[in-house]
Amino acid sequence: MRGSTALERFQSPTQVIATAFGLAVLAGTLLLRLPAATTTGESAGWVVALFTATSAVTVTGMATVDTDGHWSVMGEIVIAALIQVGGLGIMTLATMFTVLVSGRLGLRARMLAQAESKALGTADMRRVARKVLYFSLSCEAIIAVILTLRFLIGYGEPPGKAIYLGVFHAISSFNDAGFALWSDGLMRFVGDPWICLTIAVAVIVGGLGYPVVFELFRAWRHPAKWTVLTKITVWMTLALLTVGTLAFLVAEWTNPRTLGALDDPGKLLAAFFASVMPRSAGFNTLDISQMHPSSWLVTDVLMFIGGGSAGTAGGIKVTTFGLLAFVIWAELRGEPRVNIGHRRLPESAQRQAVAISLMAVAFVAVSTYILLVITPHSLDRVLFEVIAAFGTAGLSTGITSDLPPAGHLLLVLLMFVGRIGPLTLGSALALKERSTRYELPEERVIVG
Amino acid sequence: MRGSTALERFQSPTQVIATAFGLAVLAGTLLLRLPAATTTGESAGWVVALFTATSAVTVTGMATVDTDGHWSVMGEIVIAALIQVGGLGIMTLATMFTVLVSGRLGLRARMLAQAESKALGTADMRRVARKVLYFSLSCEAIIAVILTLRFLIGYGEPPGKAIYLGVFHAISSFNDAGFALWSDGLMRFVGDPWICLTIAVAVIVGGLGYPVVFELFRAWRHPAKWTVLTKITVWMTLALLTVGTLAFLVAEWTNPRTLGALDDPGKLLAAFFASVMPRSAGFNTLDISQMHPSSWLVTDVLMFIGGGSAGTAGGIKVTTFGLLAFVIWAELRGEPRVNIGHRRLPESAQRQAVAISLMAVAFVAVSTYILLVITPHSLDRVLFEVIAAFGTAGLSTGITSDLPPAGHLLLVLLMFVGRIGPLTLGSALALKERSTRYELPEERVIVG
Ligand SMILES: [K+]
Ligand SMILES: [K+]
Repeated sequence: MRGSTALERFQSPTQVIATAFGLAVLAGTLLLRLPAATTTGESAGWVVALFTATSAVTVTGMATVDTDGHWSVMGEIVIAALIQVGGLGIMTLATMFTVLVSGRLGLRARMLAQAESKALGTADMRRVARKVLYFSLSCEAIIAVILTLRFLIGYGEPPGKAIYLGVFHAISSFNDAGFALWSDGLMRFVGDPWICLTIAVAVIVGGLGYPVVFELFRAWRHPAKWTVLTKITVWMTLALLTVGTLAFLVAEWTNPRTLGALDDPGKLLAAFFASVMPRSAGFNTLDISQMHPSSWLVTDVLMFIGGGSAGTAGGIKVTTFGLLAFVIWAELRGEPRVNIGHRRLPESAQRQAVAISLMAVAFVAVSTYILLVITPHSLDRVLFEVIAAFGTAGLSTGITSDLPPAGHLLLVLLMFVGRIGPLTLGSALALKERSTRYELPEERVIVG
Repeated sequence: MRGSTALERFQSPTQVIATAFGLAVLAGTLLLRLPAATTTGESAGWVVALFTATSAVTVTGMATVDTDGHWSVMGEIVIAALIQVGGLGIMTLATMFTVLVSGRLGLRARMLAQAESKALGTADMRRVARKVLYFSLSCEAIIAVILTLRFLIGYGEPPGKAIYLGVFHAISSFNDAGFALWSDGLMRFVGDPWICLTIAVAVIVGGLGYPVVFELFRAWRHPAKWTVLTKITVWMTLALLTVGTLAFLVAEWTNPRTLGALDDPGKLLAAFFASVMPRSAGFNTLDISQMHPSSWLVTDVLMFIGGGSAGTAGGIKVTTFGLLAFVIWAELRGEPRVNIGHRRLPESAQRQAVAISLMAVAFVAVSTYILLVITPHSLDRVLFEVIAAFGTAGLSTGITSDLPPAGHLLLVLLMFVGRIGPLTLGSALALKERSTRYELPEERVIVG
């Protein structure tokens, strides 16, 4: 294989990624159609199998059936495997594009030299993929051990069951998938900081994205030297977590069906957990269907924004959102250039952020309209469902299983487009732009 | 008065416009507080008077009380006067900024010469104001005559009453205000094309904006020669009207409480009327509270977009929306420049469109959140109410009078900011930009 082949393949990222994810969904659907995949031993319906496979591969975590009740252990293992494949796949592909576009991650010098000759070697690709794999598996192993110990000690589960639950939820949480093996999600663990904080940290780390996590490992002591990508991701993440936690505390403090039933530390833990999950893990320790509509709206916004680029999170990404904030700020101050931390943001990146956000808004609006037309549900719940699917967050106000098959297929489309859309769009736009224009020392920031 | 004074004053458009509209609202509030303004002869409450005055001056048309039942003839005349002042005011100010920014309307040559010396004379300002005044009063007179004849002939109203109703609704419709003197709005005229089409045309012409209407008068035979402003406004208006009409027909065709009760031509008329009103007149011939939630969502989108620049319409404006569509289209095609009809769209205009739209989204989202927190209503109705106020469309699903005083004050703020926000923001951004950069032959397009 010649060195240029890998790059050529990546010049049409939409096809590559869509094909890869499409094949994974197809394989998952066929596996979940096997009689052995269900507890009853009867084949799951096509729509159920397709929906579950898509939900797992896109690490969304939406479910039309009770995961524990409907699927056998074999079915659950298929789901965990699909999550692992989908999560690793998106991290690897997204990281490769980050490398390709930004020339960061230590490959920068080589990248800049190679960009001219368009020869990004397969060796570089392999190196990135290997790093992502090691990183993911290490994190998952640590999370699995912590969770297993807790299930073993705190809940008296037998060792085999504890390990099974620990591994499944480690995979499900680090990959931001949000599948849980209890019919009420994680509501029984609402007051358990061991479980809640472990899963919250797993979700945050998985959702920050590999480039950012890697840079934080290297240079967490020197925030001033971080790349723009890392700065925006970290500060925006902290801001969104704070705003989300406060909003849930305010809206749900006295709601007896959510925070009202908990003591004060429990309220804080549950509100924090609820603010982490929309980016974009989808676990819940509170009953979302009983939340105040204003909490749904906050969750909508958080799910739409999602997490960091090149991680397992969905949504338009905090970087995209952060860039837009800087663009508006510069515009209001009448500055012709957008500067972020002593770096000028190229106009092409601004336009990419705008294009991705507005297309996401349009896609969500049209899908919400269609789902409103074909179901009897109100805008609150339908919008929540649509954004949860598009942002691959997978939370729900409880209407997922009530939807007609056409609604399930629409959600399948939303999950699929939501998973690969911003990445492929961002990569395609950035690569296209890179090949036509060429002035450094601007700094590229990943959008989408 | 020296020639430069007028321009200097307009270099801080936010203060000028906010002060002018603030004073008009204040005067209106005091007048509506007079005991003679109500049918009962008792002073209206402060919040009711403030809300009604703001709604009239901003030509929104929202009402917390039944306009005909609560206000005396004197009160109604105050409301009509406030609408006239507000409508003329916004058209004049907006047109002046259009002149200032785009140098169109026949003043172009002089403008370009004068821009260097920053000397836009008060004579130019007076000329524009006079043109706007003549244009508005002529249109209103024609509409008033048509409506009066219909009330006289078709409904047997006595001449005095027919003239009063004709003049009031001519002012209310041409200025896109949407106040009606029947407690059920215009529902009794749902099948009357004479009334419905007259008002629809009045709303469309008033909402296109003076620069576009003037250019259409001059050059309607030569669409290829239209300015970008006119092209975008006309085609986008036609597109939105078509999409809106179709959406209402689809969603309401079988709804017995809306279109279902009408014959087929009546359905078409009512659906067309319903698609015209969100831009941004706010009359209704159908019971909005009985519409399908999907129709509310369509109306939300139409109200948010609003009408043309430099007219009486609200919203972010069809030009802003149209520019964004072109920006995204260019971005998806990988074109470094955004071209509209053989003209290049300056990047500053793109950024202004983005800034105005995204700030509008943020403002609507935060207001919706607040209203969700302080009222028991669902997202459907609250979002509709917020966008109706911000877009100065004034339609409602029926919750306006149920809101607490804090909710009414929030709507007052939304109407005020929605009325002057996009204009002042757009003007401030454009003037700021104009003073720093100077390369023609790009063509300026008004944003906001
Ligand atoms: K998820
Ligand atoms: K209006």
